Amino acid sequence: MLSRLRSAIAGADAAAAAAAQRHLDALTKPPGSLGRLEELAVRLVALTGRAPRVTQPVIFTFAADHGVVAEGVSAYPQSVTAQMVENFLNGGAAINVLASEVGARVVVADFGVATPPTARNGLVVRRIASGTQNMAVGPAMTREQAIAAIEHGAALAEEAIAAGADLLGTGEMGIGNTTAASAITAAITGEPAEAVTGRGTGVDDAGWRRKVAVIRRALLVNHPDPSDGLDVLAKTGGFEIAGLAGVILAGASHRVPVALDGFIAGSAALVAVTLAPDARHALFASHRSSEPGHALALEHLGLAPYLDLGMRLGEGTGAALFVHLVRAAGAIYSRMATFKSAGVDGPA
Amino acid sequence: MLSRLRSAIAGADAAAAAAAQRHLDALTKPPGSLGRLEELAVRLVALTGRAPRVTQPVIFTFAADHGVVAEGVSAYPQSVTAQMVENFLNGGAAINVLASEVGARVVVADFGVATPPTARNGLVVRRIASGTQNMAVGPAMTREQAIAAIEHGAALAEEAIAAGADLLGTGEMGIGNTTAASAITAAITGEPAEAVTGRGTGVDDAGWRRKVAVIRRALLVNHPDPSDGLDVLAKTGGFEIAGLAGVILAGASHRVPVALDGFIAGSAALVAVTLAPDARHALFASHRSSEPGHALALEHLGLAPYLDLGMRLGEGTGAALFVHLVRAAGAIYSRMATFKSAGVDGPA
Repeated sequence: MLSRLRSAIAGADAAAAAAAQRHLDALTKPPGSLGRLEELAVRLVALTGRAPRVTQPVIFTFAADHGVVAEGVSAYPQSVTAQMVENFLNGGAAINVLASEVGARVVVADFGVATPPTARNGLVVRRIASGTQNMAVGPAMTREQAIAAIEHGAALAEEAIAAGADLLGTGEMGIGNTTAASAITAAITGEPAEAVTGRGTGVDDAGWRRKVAVIRRALLVNHPDPSDGLDVLAKTGGFEIAGLAGVILAGASHRVPVALDGFIAGSAALVAVTLAPDARHALFASHRSSEPGHALALEHLGLAPYLDLGMRLGEGTGAALFVHLVRAAGAIYSRMATFKSAGVDGPA
Repeated sequence: MLSRLRSAIAGADAAAAAAAQRHLDALTKPPGSLGRLEELAVRLVALTGRAPRVTQPVIFTFAADHGVVAEGVSAYPQSVTAQMVENFLNGGAAINVLASEVGARVVVADFGVATPPTARNGLVVRRIASGTQNMAVGPAMTREQAIAAIEHGAALAEEAIAAGADLLGTGEMGIGNTTAASAITAAITGEPAEAVTGRGTGVDDAGWRRKVAVIRRALLVNHPDPSDGLDVLAKTGGFEIAGLAGVILAGASHRVPVALDGFIAGSAALVAVTLAPDARHALFASHRSSEPGHALALEHLGLAPYLDLGMRLGEGTGAALFVHLVRAAGAIYSRMATFKSAGVDGPA
C-alpha cells in the first residue's frame, strides 16, 4: 500500500495554476490585492484541477503515547492522553468546538494509547502497541510498526475520501509528542536539538534543558538516516505521527488538500515528504505554532503558514480554523464579478 | 452628538478580563495554548462584559471620492469609485462574498462619490459633497464637514446597534484614499511620508514618488495639528474615513467591538483615538495590510493584527474574515469542557 501511495503522488499542475491566476486577475479588485487568499486559491486549483471548494472537511485526530515520557520531558502526566481521548469523544475539547464551527467531522483514533480508552461509539481503534518505546535508549518502534501505522492512517483517509471528504486536517494528542516531533525535525532538517525544541505543554527551564538533552541522546543512540523517512519515523517518531504521515500520503495521492496543523503535524509532513517529495504540493500549512521547531520544519517543507496566532495546542485546532480561509478563497474565486461583467474600469 | 459619544467612551474592565483569563485557564488545554484566540476572548469580555458572541455582524462599506486624485496618485481612474458602489449593490465585490460567508450585513453608503451613484435599494446616501477638495493645495474639507461625516457614520452604527448588531466592521472604497490615509497616518504618528506611503491599488515607482511628494506637500500646506483629530481629518482626510471614525466612536461608546479592516480603517482609528483615547479598547485589528503605513498605524494604536495575509483591498474584507476568529474565540470560551468537568489531570 505504501508503495502504491508513493508512486501515485505527482506534482502540481502549472497550467491550471496559471489559468487560475488569470481568472483571479479578471475579478473586480487590483491584481494580487487579496494576497495569500489568492495564492491559496491558485494552489488549490493546481492540486485539484477545479475551483476551490470545501464541503466535507474531515480532521484526523490521532492519539498515542510515547515511551520517552519516562525521561521527564512533559509538564503533564501520561494519563492525560487517554483522558483527552475521552474528552474528544465527549465533544469537550478545543478541536471539537472548532471543528463544529466549520462543519468538520473529527475522526478520533487510538494509534497506541498506553492505557486503552474504553471502546465506544466514535472511537476508531488502530492500536500498534501500548505506546512507543523510549527513544532515548533505542528505536521508538520497529520499521514494520511504522509502516503499519502509516498504512492505517492512509486507509482511514482513503475511506473518508471515498465518502466525499474534500479537505483532510491533521490533528493529534499524545503526551510527549513534541519531543518526538523535535527529534524528527532535527533529524530531517539537520537543525540542532536546541533550535527545534520548545516547551510543549509548558515545561520549565530545567524541563526544557532535559528535553533537549533527551533529544540529543535519541539522535546519538539511534542515528536516524535523514534520507530515509521510515528510518527517522521508526527511531524517533510516534504512532500518531506515523498515522498522520499516512493521511498526508493518501491525500496527496488522491489530490485532496491536506491542512497541516502545528508542529507535530509538521513532523509528520517532513516524514511524508521524505518518502514522496511531491506530497508537498498537497500540503497547506494552516498556521505557525509557537513551538520553535515548527517554523524550521515549514521552511524545510517550503510552506508558508496562513495563520500566526501563537497557538500550540495541536489536536487539529489550526487546521480547523484554516477551513474558513479555504472557503473564503473559494468564495472569492467562484462568486466575484469580473471587471468586464461589472462594468468597472481598469487601470488608467 | 460627537461630544456625547466622546464622553460615553470608557476603558476596558480589568476585573472582567482577569475573570475571563481564569475561565480560559480552567478549560482542557495547557494555559495560553490557544494564543491570540484567548487574548481575543479576554479583550471581548473586558469590552462587552459577557461571553464573546457574534450573531449579527454588520460591515460598513463607505464610499467617497478624493480631490487629491488630480495629482495623479492612483493607478485607477476616479470613475471606479462609483462603479464599485454599483458592484457592491449588485453583490459582485470581494466584500459581498466574504461578508456572505460569515452572515454579515453590508451597509453601503455614499459619503461623497464624485458622480452620485443611481439611487436604488440598498444604497444609503449620506453625501457631504461630490468628493473632497485637493489636499495638496488646501484643506480636504471644512471642520463642519468632518463633524457631519463623523456623525452620519456614528448614526448609521447606532441604528445598527439598536437593531442588534454585535460586531461592527469598517470598510471603504474611494480611489485616492490610501493617499489620504497616508497623510493622516504621517500627521498623527509623526512618521515621514515615505514610511507611510505604499502603492495603493498599484502605482509604479514614479507614481509612488509622486504620491510621497503630494503627501509631503499636503502636510506642509495644511500643517494639521496632530493632537486635534478633527483638524487632521478635515485637512487630509476623506468623507468615508470620517464616517468610519464615527462608526468607531459609536461602537466604543456602546461597548460593541469594532473590527478594523486595513490601512484606511486604521487611519480612521487614529482619528477616533485622538478624539477619544479609550476608544482603542473597542478596536480589534482584523489584519495587517501590505500597505506599509498600516503597521505603523497599528503600532501607534497599540493593536496587534490577528491576520497577516498580504491583503490590501479594503472594502471591509479583512474585517469579514476576522468574524470567523471572533466566533472561534467565542466557541472556545463557551463550549469547551474544564479539566474538572472532563476528569482530565493537570500538570504533574
